[in-house]
Order: sequence, then structure tokens, then C-alpha cells
Amino acid sequence: MSKSAGIVIIGNEVLSGKTQDTNSYFLCTELRQLGVEVQKISTIPDVIELIGHEVAAFSQRFDFVFTTGGVGPTHDDVTIEGIAHGFGLNVVRHPDIEQRMRQRLGADVNEARLRMANVPEGAELLATEALFAPVVKIRNVYIFPGIPRILQERFHTIKERFRDTPYFLKNVYVKYGEGVIATMLNEVLAKFPQLLLGSYPMLDIPEYKVKVTLESKDPDYLERALQSFLSSLPDDAIHRID
Amino acid sequence: MSKSAGIVIIGNEVLSGKTQDTNSYFLCTELRQLGVEVQKISTIPDVIELIGHEVAAFSQRFDFVFTTGGVGPTHDDVTIEGIAHGFGLNVVRHPDIEQRMRQRLGADVNEARLRMANVPEGAELLATEALFAPVVKIRNVYIFPGIPRILQERFHTIKERFRDTPYFLKNVYVKYGEGVIATMLNEVLAKFPQLLLGSYPMLDIPEYKVKVTLESKDPDYLERALQSFLSSLPDDAIHRID
Repeated sequence: MSKSAGIVIIGNEVLSGKTQDTNSYFLCTELRQLGVEVQKISTIPDVIELIGHEVAAFSQRFDFVFTTGGVGPTHDDVTIEGIAHGFGLNVVRHPDIEQRMRQRLGADVNEARLRMANVPEGAELLATEALFAPVVKIRNVYIFPGIPRILQERFHTIKERFRDTPYFLKNVYVKYGEGVIATMLNEVLAKFPQLLLGSYPMLDIPEYKVKVTLESKDPDYLERALQSFLSSLPDDAIHRID
Repeated sequence: MSKSAGIVIIGNEVLSGKTQDTNSYFLCTELRQLGVEVQKISTIPDVIELIGHEVAAFSQRFDFVFTTGGVGPTHDDVTIEGIAHGFGLNVVRHPDIEQRMRQRLGADVNEARLRMANVPEGAELLATEALFAPVVKIRNVYIFPGIPRILQERFHTIKERFRDTPYFLKNVYVKYGEGVIATMLNEVLAKFPQLLLGSYPMLDIPEYKVKVTLESKDPDYLERALQSFLSSLPDDAIHRID
């Protein structure tokens, strides 16, 4: 069993089409490389009750939960309140963050900025050395900012704690269409039911028509499934394998 | 009240980081321009029960539901079965799609390909003139393929049916950071509680620090809110407005 993860993208700007979310793709790619299975992504508005409901449900269901967005000093930054609400916790001002803000900002500290020192009661701070504001962890939930560059830096700082046994992947680029190879795909899956098998038609690539992905955490199982699939294809069907 | 929408992105390839979903951004942008409020996006695996549960829940909650992905001839294309399952409907072969496939493919029709003629019982076909396979509509759910180019073509063919009263948007690019202007944002929201107000810090743009978005379906209300916000800012704070 892989460790599982869920991602909650928080932000009206994504739902209203003002911003293209790239954080979920970054997290999915990184977590897959770490051997973690992302099972769901939810994108929801900056609304306390909705955030609380979604994060609490994800926390029950997945080993790790990652949230992005809604941490900052303004009215629409309600992620901390939302998650605290979802867990039935108070919001408290974290003394370490407050102290750091006062050191850095001096007289420019104001109530709005100090909202960034708020955390759900009992939260732990991670990646504290890297940057101004740390990653806030409460239970199995990791709270990240929405700005991609900052999220990426912080994720790389703490990612080793999520590492699980790796996935092994083979891609087979096939010259025939899905309608032709569907039977062979069903056959390999019947013989190798644990195989993670994907089939993706490619419209605009003249050299091949379908990219087939075979994946497993067991490299021997993967190799046997690969050989079985390859032997079921006509000789001229394979463009390349990588 | 705006018409509401939910989007369900179906595909292991997105969750495993193999493919970056661009369909949700396309749909969010288009629906916003049509005046429709997207309230949630869920990205879920190719699993019948999960698809059924999510789509049935979205169908109850939102005026329109859009699904992308999981329609095709292979083992991982289970969107139709999933949605039928969620609504407690049978899967039936649609005679119009089957006829078209037989006309086009002749002797190359096989059982795998004919799966693409399957629909939940009672489904309606839309955008039938445009392309090989139509958009399948069941209740308030619009079932689109995952390939972006095809999804986009089909969406444009049917989009007028979703049109609602438009949103009006003003962007104000502010030279001060969020920590400084948070108070002004709170003030304008206190005076104009119906305003849709966003605040987005920009790290890498020297000319300004925050993009503030003001939005409403009532252009007069928007204009009054904009003037109120502008008058609360220091004279040198505004980089530009558009």
C-alpha cells in the first residue's frame, strides 16, 4: 500500500479563471516521484466553512493533505481560520512567527500583517530556516502559500518526510490507435491485475497514436507485464519504449 | 444569483503527474466570461464508484456540471459507467452514435470502439454536427472528452446555452504591499459587502506589488466600490487601472 495524499487548492482566483493553478501539477509530479499516491484534488473558494469541511474530510481519508493558497494578510486569506474551524480548534498567534515579524518589520508591523502569525492551536512549524513564513503543519495537513515559487522552495525543504517506496514506470509508444489495442490492454490487465495501466491517445504526433504507461512498485512485476504486453502487439506496432 | 457550475476532472494521469490538466482553466475562463460562477473543481481517478459519487453530488449542488476525461475505448475509460452508476441508470448503446461509427469505420468497428457509443440511459446528444463523437448530456451533466483541443471545439459549439448576466471586472495595480493595503481592502468590503474583491501579491514585478481585483454583476455598484477604494489609497499608490 502506498501512502496516499489529497491536495486542496484554495482560491477564488482559480475558480474565476484569473489564475491558472500550477501548484497541483507540481505537487502531483513531486509526490509521484516520492512514491506517494495522490488520490484527489479539490479546488474550492476562500470560504471558511468550505475550507474546514474539505480539509477535515481529506484529513480523515488520506495520509497526507496539502493545502495551497489563502495565507496572507488580507480579507480573502482565510485558510488558517478555515482549517481550525474544520478541526474544531482555536486560532492562536504563534509566538515564533510573531517575533520574527517584529524583528524584520519593526514599526511596520500592523494587525493585518500579524494575521500571518496566526495558526490553528497545536500547529507545528516546518521549514522555519528557509524563508520569512514557515510551512504550518496541523495533524496530517501541510499548509502552503499559493505563490508557486515559494511553495516549491518550501516543499523541497521538507519533502523527504513524505518518501515512500518508489514507482517504476515504462512508456510504450504505439503506432496503432486505442480502438485497435484496447483488447491487448484488457489482456495484460487480466494477467497482471495489480498493474497501473494507462492509455493516452495522441492526436498531433505523426510517429505514434497512443502512449501506453505501465507502472508498479514491483520492478519484476512491471517487467513481466511489459513483456506480456509487448508480445501481444503486432511486430510493427511499437514506435519506441522508454 | 449567478448560475453555478462544478467541474469534475477524471483521470489517473493528472493525479499521477503525467499530464498537466489545462481543461479546468479553460472551462473556468470561459464560464466566467459567460457569467457563470464555478464553485468547485474535483480531480478524481478512473474509478466507477468515485466518479458516480462525485458527479451525483455535484449534480445536486450546482446548476451545471462538466466532466472531462475517461471517454474512449479502453479499460480506463469508465466515465459513462461511473455517471450512470451515480444516477442509478443503466448504460445503453446509443443508436445514433453506433450508426455513425459503423458508417465511418466499416469493418474496423469492434467491441472496444463500440464502447464509445455507450451512454447513460436517457442521455441527450449535443454538438452532434461538429465531430465524430458528440457531447453527452445527462440531467445537468455535460460529459466532455479529456483531449483539450476536442473539448474546446465542443464547448464553443454549445456554450451559449450557459450564458448568464455578465461579470464586470476592474483591476487595480498597487505599489504598496498587502500588509499596507489590507485595511483599505477591509474598508471597501465593509461598505460594499456584495463586492467580489481579490488581492494577489506579485513577487517579480518591479512596477507594483499587488493586483487588486474588484468584480460585480452590477456595473454601477462596481464603479462606486472602485471610487471608494481608490480614494482610500495614498495618491502615489496606484500604478495603473484596467
